[in-house]
Amino acid sequence: VTGDAYNQTDRTRVRRLAKRGAYDRATVHAILDEGFICHVAMVVDGSPVVLPTGYGRAGERLFIHGSAANRMLKTAAQGVEISVAVTLVDGLVLARSAFHHSINYRSVVIFGTAQLLTDPAEKNAALRVISDHIIRGRWNEVRPPSNKELAATSVIAVDLNEVSAKVRTGPPIDDEEDMAHPAWAGVLPLSIQPGEPAADLQAGEAPVIPEYVKNYRRRT
Amino acid sequence: VTGDAYNQTDRTRVRRLAKRGAYDRATVHAILDEGFICHVAMVVDGSPVVLPTGYGRAGERLFIHGSAANRMLKTAAQGVEISVAVTLVDGLVLARSAFHHSINYRSVVIFGTAQLLTDPAEKNAALRVISDHIIRGRWNEVRPPSNKELAATSVIAVDLNEVSAKVRTGPPIDDEEDMAHPAWAGVLPLSIQPGEPAADLQAGEAPVIPEYVKNYRRRT
Repeated sequence: VTGDAYNQTDRTRVRRLAKRGAYDRATVHAILDEGFICHVAMVVDGSPVVLPTGYGRAGERLFIHGSAANRMLKTAAQGVEISVAVTLVDGLVLARSAFHHSINYRSVVIFGTAQLLTDPAEKNAALRVISDHIIRGRWNEVRPPSNKELAATSVIAVDLNEVSAKVRTGPPIDDEEDMAHPAWAGVLPLSIQPGEPAADLQAGEAPVIPEYVKNYRRRT
Repeated sequence: VTGDAYNQTDRTRVRRLAKRGAYDRATVHAILDEGFICHVAMVVDGSPVVLPTGYGRAGERLFIHGSAANRMLKTAAQGVEISVAVTLVDGLVLARSAFHHSINYRSVVIFGTAQLLTDPAEKNAALRVISDHIIRGRWNEVRPPSNKELAATSVIAVDLNEVSAKVRTGPPIDDEEDMAHPAWAGVLPLSIQPGEPAADLQAGEAPVIPEYVKNYRRRT
């Protein structure tokens, strides 16, 4: 890792509304760390395919896992090119004109080559990264993966190299001549919120609910 | 439209955990109607590209819009194949073993060909569909698109034809031999919640906040 920003390439450079583009690692990392669902695209038999999945980040690498029988992971495991997007929606931007309506969001798009992890210890470490990424504290309390389970799980990595972020914040930007239009204008914030944890009682009375569940929050 | 379900194709059939697959229109429509951000994938210069964007549904068609200068829309406008995913995250599924952790979610994946709308009236109608989809009631109150704004906006449509949904609900499913493991197990529900609307005061005192903003909810 050299420098505080990713190099821009032809396909990561944000052209339209270029001021929304961000290439610094801090912005990219913060978005990746707040999200936990990504959308992975690849080319299968010449056609685009996009699927959602969980992920984790360690330094300049993103890890994605799934069943070894999963078709997407089987394809990715061949070292194909992938594109990965993580999108956080922060609010609806309600302008006075239909045209200037927008969404406040923070997104990251990654281009790279999928790398299949084959070493069981490396796979186990990557699964811990994903678990810690989604719900920190959980890994220490659960029964760890067996060798058989590790073998049934595929993990792919993609390097954070060709990456950019795009961010829109703030109020609606209306045209001057629309400012007298009588519609309410502003931002309706949206965020992902946890509800009441539902204990699984199949094994009898539930243990005390852990802090990391009770006070779950995404933003660190 | 014939029948209550989409025909399964080789790439829409959910194979692994096949019981999670759903092909009926009611399930697909409900997921598409609750979401409003999709991820669109296409092949550009032989490589996969995935980007987030808003959308709307009318019957068996999905509409996506953006600036006519937007590279993705320019590519899509050529009638290329696209894949579109809509994903709703309902909760974290915390099992007693690392291996059986999961996410409760509802997702739809569409395969199709992007169709560029060229008729201004048709474009205007599609933009209304998108607006109504994201926040019903808004379109009636705002200044409608001018001819110039319509010309600056690209709208593409994709037919709901090759489509499937995937749904996971319910508690963790642990192996019998892990049921005595002392970790708390259960589901932490997650949902997108609106915050306090922030009025834009650039034009002076704000009008009364509309009902469709004050009581915004996604599920219909």
